[in-house]
Amino acid sequence: MANCITGGKKRYDDCWLGFSPFVDSTVLENYKKWCSNIVFDEEGETARTACDELVRSLQDMLSIKPAVSCKPSGEHFIVLELINEDSPYIKVDKEEIKQVSFEGFMIKTVNTGREKYIYIAARSGRGLIYGVFKFLYKLVFRSDIENLHIIENPVNPLRMINHWDNMDGSIERGYAGRSLFYEGYELTEDLDRVRYYARLLASVGINGVVINNVNVHYQETRLVADKIHVVKTLADIFRKYGIQTYLSINYASPIQLTGLDTADPLDERVAGWWKQTVDKIYEVIPDFGGFLVKADSENRPGPYTYNRNHAEGANMIARALKPHGGILIWRCFVYNCQQDWRDLSIDRAKAAYENYQYLDGQFMDNVILQIKNGPMDFQVREPVSPLFGAMKYTNQMIELQITQEYTGQQRHLCYLIPMWKEVLDFDTYAKGKGSTVKRVVDGSLFDYKYSGFAGVVNVGRDYNWTGHYLAQANLYGYARLAWNPELSAEKITEEWIKLTYGSDPDVLGTISDMLLKSWRIYENYNAPLGIGWMVNPSYHYGPNPDGYEYSRWGTYHKADHEKIGVDRTVKNGTGFTAQYFKENMEMYESPDTCPDELILFFHRLPYTYRLKSGKTIIQHIYDTHFEGVEQAKELREQWLSLKGKVDGLRFEHVLKRLEEQIEHAREWRDVINSYFYRKTGIPDEKGRKIY
Amino acid sequence: MANCITGGKKRYDDCWLGFSPFVDSTVLENYKKWCSNIVFDEEGETARTACDELVRSLQDMLSIKPAVSCKPSGEHFIVLELINEDSPYIKVDKEEIKQVSFEGFMIKTVNTGREKYIYIAARSGRGLIYGVFKFLYKLVFRSDIENLHIIENPVNPLRMINHWDNMDGSIERGYAGRSLFYEGYELTEDLDRVRYYARLLASVGINGVVINNVNVHYQETRLVADKIHVVKTLADIFRKYGIQTYLSINYASPIQLTGLDTADPLDERVAGWWKQTVDKIYEVIPDFGGFLVKADSENRPGPYTYNRNHAEGANMIARALKPHGGILIWRCFVYNCQQDWRDLSIDRAKAAYENYQYLDGQFMDNVILQIKNGPMDFQVREPVSPLFGAMKYTNQMIELQITQEYTGQQRHLCYLIPMWKEVLDFDTYAKGKGSTVKRVVDGSLFDYKYSGFAGVVNVGRDYNWTGHYLAQANLYGYARLAWNPELSAEKITEEWIKLTYGSDPDVLGTISDMLLKSWRIYENYNAPLGIGWMVNPSYHYGPNPDGYEYSRWGTYHKADHEKIGVDRTVKNGTGFTAQYFKENMEMYESPDTCPDELILFFHRLPYTYRLKSGKTIIQHIYDTHFEGVEQAKELREQWLSLKGKVDGLRFEHVLKRLEEQIEHAREWRDVINSYFYRKTGIPDEKGRKIY
Repeated sequence: MANCITGGKKRYDDCWLGFSPFVDSTVLENYKKWCSNIVFDEEGETARTACDELVRSLQDMLSIKPAVSCKPSGEHFIVLELINEDSPYIKVDKEEIKQVSFEGFMIKTVNTGREKYIYIAARSGRGLIYGVFKFLYKLVFRSDIENLHIIENPVNPLRMINHWDNMDGSIERGYAGRSLFYEGYELTEDLDRVRYYARLLASVGINGVVINNVNVHYQETRLVADKIHVVKTLADIFRKYGIQTYLSINYASPIQLTGLDTADPLDERVAGWWKQTVDKIYEVIPDFGGFLVKADSENRPGPYTYNRNHAEGANMIARALKPHGGILIWRCFVYNCQQDWRDLSIDRAKAAYENYQYLDGQFMDNVILQIKNGPMDFQVREPVSPLFGAMKYTNQMIELQITQEYTGQQRHLCYLIPMWKEVLDFDTYAKGKGSTVKRVVDGSLFDYKYSGFAGVVNVGRDYNWTGHYLAQANLYGYARLAWNPELSAEKITEEWIKLTYGSDPDVLGTISDMLLKSWRIYENYNAPLGIGWMVNPSYHYGPNPDGYEYSRWGTYHKADHEKIGVDRTVKNGTGFTAQYFKENMEMYESPDTCPDELILFFHRLPYTYRLKSGKTIIQHIYDTHFEGVEQAKELREQWLSLKGKVDGLRFEHVLKRLEEQIEHAREWRDVINSYFYRKTGIPDEKGRKIY
Repeated sequence: MANCITGGKKRYDDCWLGFSPFVDSTVLENYKKWCSNIVFDEEGETARTACDELVRSLQDMLSIKPAVSCKPSGEHFIVLELINEDSPYIKVDKEEIKQVSFEGFMIKTVNTGREKYIYIAARSGRGLIYGVFKFLYKLVFRSDIENLHIIENPVNPLRMINHWDNMDGSIERGYAGRSLFYEGYELTEDLDRVRYYARLLASVGINGVVINNVNVHYQETRLVADKIHVVKTLADIFRKYGIQTYLSINYASPIQLTGLDTADPLDERVAGWWKQTVDKIYEVIPDFGGFLVKADSENRPGPYTYNRNHAEGANMIARALKPHGGILIWRCFVYNCQQDWRDLSIDRAKAAYENYQYLDGQFMDNVILQIKNGPMDFQVREPVSPLFGAMKYTNQMIELQITQEYTGQQRHLCYLIPMWKEVLDFDTYAKGKGSTVKRVVDGSLFDYKYSGFAGVVNVGRDYNWTGHYLAQANLYGYARLAWNPELSAEKITEEWIKLTYGSDPDVLGTISDMLLKSWRIYENYNAPLGIGWMVNPSYHYGPNPDGYEYSRWGTYHKADHEKIGVDRTVKNGTGFTAQYFKENMEMYESPDTCPDELILFFHRLPYTYRLKSGKTIIQHIYDTHFEGVEQAKELREQWLSLKGKVDGLRFEHVLKRLEEQIEHAREWRDVINSYFYRKTGIPDEKGRKIY
């Protein structure tokens, strides 16, 4: 399905689905042989999507028109079917086929002597779609298809995308143009683009999408009621691609939408209203996914208004969803956003744990807590939230931010997969060694009923979807990690580059290197050593060392003439470290064992303190900031080396962004270095220019 | 003219024109005797306004219905007439009457034996209005009217109000609700309120109003063309009160409004377009005042785009205005707003002088340069702009900011008259001792053709007009100073209080004291010692010591661990002091003679430097900031003592604002003190709490 072409001009970039025609004739002839006939005889809408995608992409790549029929015609063919023990094509071990889960798939090359076919099978239409794309990618990678033998199941049950789109067409923290879904409080007229978007998401295994901002304003509150037709239209599009639709809701909906004067979860009228509302939604959208809720957070209403805890608050709505199989996703981003900066007794890092951990066991089984990766808010470097693994009896999922709010807003190159890998591989020790975050959120550690990934997406109406062309990799990589967090960053990166830019080894090597080091580069010229928040308030772009220092947001570095950092130890500080299991608690508690990169998050230290690297803190700050700018320049040099090997549009666009990044990295370097130099009076050992 | 009353409720506050009924019977009976008959026989619209105002206010105060006729009926009466040598009522010395200028008036009690009358006379309708209000105020003050003998002429020819209103209804730097003039790109429907506003302005002698923001956006650019009807409607209202209407224009108008691709002032097509446009305006509004221009400033277009200087840029438009008697007011707020903070060679303070001074003598005589009081931008403390007096042959006027952008945004009490008095009394030494700013801007020092005052107004649609009830005093006081800069702050304050709150000595004493000290209080807890700019960027409210430190705006304090301030001396610094005449240059050049309150504006000094007060800079910072909060608390105590003596609505409103001010002064105190304590490590001598 090529994207809509108007007047000879594409309306948007293909991303990783630009299945371009093969020019390498040997492999082409072989693939043609296998792919010209497709056996397909399924009824379901999603299964049909799988078949359509297969046909269309084979056409694009191989310049053939594959025949689709319920019987094979010829010696070589493809079988695409839902798993059925009576099928004549199921030539695999019975035990093996059992390994395919509801969303998984099998791809196997079968040779019966008489017939040779590629068997793509799954238990659901969704699984078929995933299998088809897997197969298509194999072709793009020029794989040997004569001996395929693959079973793949997604590791995480929930692989969700969160949109922070508002119905006026704006996107909170969006850096790639306006909303794909809305404009002027109405549904977009460009549903073709939404269809392509659904295809993009399905092609990497996304199975749920929350279509509106967690900060639910007046118009969006109406989505559960008189604006439900908007939801239905989008749900119909996403369903075709095996994606369930969810809504962010306003906890105070009954107040806004009815005559009720309360949203108290223990008030029967409130519960009754939600039940009725949910029932009506499911009448219109029978496979509706459920709700996402930001309650009692950053001035959003919630159960605390009525002196109810968050289990009481969540369960009331979960109860309404349960008969329909709906789930309630409850965000744990709850903290005091009216903090007096002078009040040293409060530590925002502790908030999520304090608000939720004690409620373990009290939530209904269709409630899932959605927890941001770190205890603060998507900084370039944070420790892992101690809430992961700390609730045995409560479903948990992880929230990652694909949109680069604090990581360069898609103007800087900052590939987030390496960061997310570190988070997912972090051992919580919740059930002893090996209790990694990825095992918490895939549900295996505590056998959660629901769990998985939520990613705040980075797309908008820009031609290239993500503002920065290379930021497409963050969307791709997020989905791949949600599918299987064991995949290495290198592997994901290689896949994405090959699908998007082809397999030229220079291109592959160069872009891969650029991506994989980009997060560390960004960190180098950003706030140092895990302290975070040295950004301009509100819009969160550009350096401002004291930007949040005297504010109400609870995010302080407390830098003075001699020291910097927040003591979060049990011994002398806020006691945040106690929220971790013993092994981590002990590691963070002492500066001797706390990793350098987080040392100012956990400790308050003099600028002359020597890091494990052997450098003083102040010299580390100077060095990393000078280095960061040099590295940004290097990124540009590397990209320039690809001139002629990357298409002109992408090449020029990325080059411009990289130049902007260098300029802005200089700004970061000089502001941060000047700030610390002016404050400490300690000169750079190397005598470089500081202002 | 009471303000429109709907359903028994006033729609807006009367401000100082709440002429309430007299209850003191002796004086009432006497005033009634004099005021029941008015002799008036003028034709002009503005003169009729004067008479209407007299009648209506006498009704309100004295509960009478004065008879108006062309002949007196009775022994006592008032004569209201344009000066006419043949008038039977003109019983004054011929030489004396010559002293009345075009905008002045005479009020004289005449006793011919047979007849006793109060003679209010002027050379213009405008003068009559001013005379009437003067007389009415005399009544409010319970003055003896049996021996009046007054001649008053305004000192400044231009007494203007600048509105920063946008046609969408917003006001740039407005803190009192939305625009009085516009909403949704249309003229307001509430023209009654505009009429009351015109009355308010006329009652204190304002004679010109610029009705739109100096930052002229798309819709406002159209005011000179297809939206001229909007201007006409407002001009018709203001004219009735003797006020001329002016427009802010977009220098790039010919580009926006026609097919022209240039706004080059030396391009004949451009000049031709402006001539045509101006001619059309005067067809619709024959007494149109002229234009105000912000060119080449903060991203506004201007002659620099075409490599023309500002004399060339201004004269081209002035030429179009001249045949109609129109004037061109050209703002000198021109500086590099894309400065690299690392570039120490640029000093924004020098910009206005550098851009204009060398052009002296090159401007047409209907061009007036409008100069902000200080060289930066309306900070709580700045030196006087060195441009005043530095251009012998170029008309100059002063721009003051009545709206409290940097001085508490009408949430803090900050009465600006004492500050403006200091500015006006500042001796520039341009023509030797006594060359005060007030003598520059009243035109007397260099015999300017046009000159005077412009004030960026603080009104909006709030019930009380100015956000803070007591901020009404800034509008009143501004106009009074424009009328006569010799008036003392105490005198103006007393007038305003008596007109607004009556003559109770407690009320008078208390409010007067509160107002007169409020600017110093605000300064105490604000940025110290003339350094300025320690505010949150963009909205300019609340403390943020480094808010502008690493920005492009050219406003830096350069505080480091040891020193703070900008060296602007000739000897070691930017050389800004050289822009002053010798006496001031020498005063500012040395820290020994530079006044304490400006010392960090002119000098970079260690925190341990001893001020003339005997205190170190750091201790001065701590002391003033602690003191400022205590003083803010005292303001509240003083106001509380007026309970029952000030009407409830005003009392409660002001009380709330004062409480907010205390809270916010604490924030200022703690942020500024903490900032310096953390930076210097020098403790407060008195051991008070710093964070």
